[in-house]
Amino acid sequence: MKKTIRAFAPATVANVSCGFDILGFAIDELGDQVEVSLSETPGLKVVKIEGDGGRLPYEAEKNTCTVAIQAMLDHLGFTKGMEISLYKGLPLGSGMGSSAASAAAALVAANALLGYPFDKKQLVNFAIEAERIACGAAHADNVAPSLLGGFVLIRDYEPLDVIKLPVPKGLYCTLLHPHLELNTSDSRSVLRTQISLKDSTIQSGNIAGLIAGLFQEDYNLISRSLKDVIAEPTRALLIPGFYELREAIQTIGALGSGISGSGPTIFTLSPSQAIAKEVGSAGKEVFKKIGLDVDVYISEVNDRGAYVI
Amino acid sequence: MKKTIRAFAPATVANVSCGFDILGFAIDELGDQVEVSLSETPGLKVVKIEGDGGRLPYEAEKNTCTVAIQAMLDHLGFTKGMEISLYKGLPLGSGMGSSAASAAAALVAANALLGYPFDKKQLVNFAIEAERIACGAAHADNVAPSLLGGFVLIRDYEPLDVIKLPVPKGLYCTLLHPHLELNTSDSRSVLRTQISLKDSTIQSGNIAGLIAGLFQEDYNLISRSLKDVIAEPTRALLIPGFYELREAIQTIGALGSGISGSGPTIFTLSPSQAIAKEVGSAGKEVFKKIGLDVDVYISEVNDRGAYVI
Repeated sequence: MKKTIRAFAPATVANVSCGFDILGFAIDELGDQVEVSLSETPGLKVVKIEGDGGRLPYEAEKNTCTVAIQAMLDHLGFTKGMEISLYKGLPLGSGMGSSAASAAAALVAANALLGYPFDKKQLVNFAIEAERIACGAAHADNVAPSLLGGFVLIRDYEPLDVIKLPVPKGLYCTLLHPHLELNTSDSRSVLRTQISLKDSTIQSGNIAGLIAGLFQEDYNLISRSLKDVIAEPTRALLIPGFYELREAIQTIGALGSGISGSGPTIFTLSPSQAIAKEVGSAGKEVFKKIGLDVDVYISEVNDRGAYVI
Repeated sequence: MKKTIRAFAPATVANVSCGFDILGFAIDELGDQVEVSLSETPGLKVVKIEGDGGRLPYEAEKNTCTVAIQAMLDHLGFTKGMEISLYKGLPLGSGMGSSAASAAAALVAANALLGYPFDKKQLVNFAIEAERIACGAAHADNVAPSLLGGFVLIRDYEPLDVIKLPVPKGLYCTLLHPHLELNTSDSRSVLRTQISLKDSTIQSGNIAGLIAGLFQEDYNLISRSLKDVIAEPTRALLIPGFYELREAIQTIGALGSGISGSGPTIFTLSPSQAIAKEVGSAGKEVFKKIGLDVDVYISEVNDRGAYVI
């Protein structure tokens, strides 16, 4: 019987507030699964995609699973073939790292199939090749946390410098995914290309505070630091309900909120599951009022990352 | 006999590379001393200043010691008088936090004289009033590390949010103070007021990496993160020898270098005293070649801050 390995990779939040473009974290349970097996014929072949509503490509040079695995195989000089099945658990284009989860799950499964030639940190290098295809930029702030779990800092890209950060105990995330289409190029085009020295300094102070808060397990400091003065002021305008939600959760005890990736999903961090649930209820109310359907996911911040099932 | 209390406060490095405007650290040994005693007559009076070459003002509303103490006494509603003697150990206008050390020593002495109504973190609020007089801006990135010791993050000013960070064991600093006058307003005027989004993101990644490196005691990460793409590229042009020094220390094993405060002093961080000394020797050579006298100070990063002698 053909050896088959199946892996799971979680959803992720990138652009974590003041960590715009450099910080992401992973979610529990919600994610994609990929099954990989060796094939008699050379080359990579996507044999099945489920849960995507028919929107994802089967072509090996366009599918994030195969692009990621191909980058790994090229590095190894491996020439045999593989068959890949993708089971999407994540909605597409939601800002929850959908393409990243597929690439991460594919790599973890293929890596296991080959006897673990790489550790998970090394796999990030191959996963960003898939992001280049899926998003037009080889960004790592979704794939790295999806692979490694926890909070992950991308300090630099030249060369890639990925730093796993500690996750304070009991830190929960509420994801609110309003049903609206957000054009990624719109999200990018509203970003200012020049920012004031003052805003840049404020952003630096807040990311420094957030990192210190994660190490010190200081929820109050994390909360004070969860402020994005660079991307959020313009991007939030594209997301109805964003500021209404922030106001609604002010008295609940959540630590802060922000845009997940480039949206439209909004993330909120909370110091307990109970508060994370209250945030979810408050969020449903907010989006009900403005007439938008919303999916709510509540999860502990996932410190494990992608794994073989 | 009149009760007299004498305190010491150390020199500090502010604008620590990627921590421009938000991060400072304290040095050992080098610093100012201030002696404070209660007086029969109301008001604050500077009775002695030594070591300043006659350049510092005796007027209570202009001297950083008295301005700082006055801010504290106003807060307490204290109306008796004090006499203050200042013993400068720090050169003026060198970028080593000279005015901050005077204010910090004055506050620690006066606070002790009054039976410790405040902890050192609270004293930062009074010390920045002295910086407002001395530097024209109420910045805290010298006074906070001079008071508290170690690396100190100033996350925000509204309200003031001061976070003490850990100091990795065996971290040494070499300060090179070339004998040249640098006009503070020149140092400020060469700063760009608009920053590209890319540079701002790079700076954020580096300060996040530096904070993580301090917590993880990861010298390699600290070294990779010690890069300032915002202030240094323009300010370094005002400091002859800056890039020559960086080149000279590349093979010695130092972690990185930067402008101390707004210069002209250059700081270098090293993972041992031996390397810090080698940096000092290399620095002397560099400045000898370009015909500038230089003072060299080598010190462990001081985790103690200001104290009563």
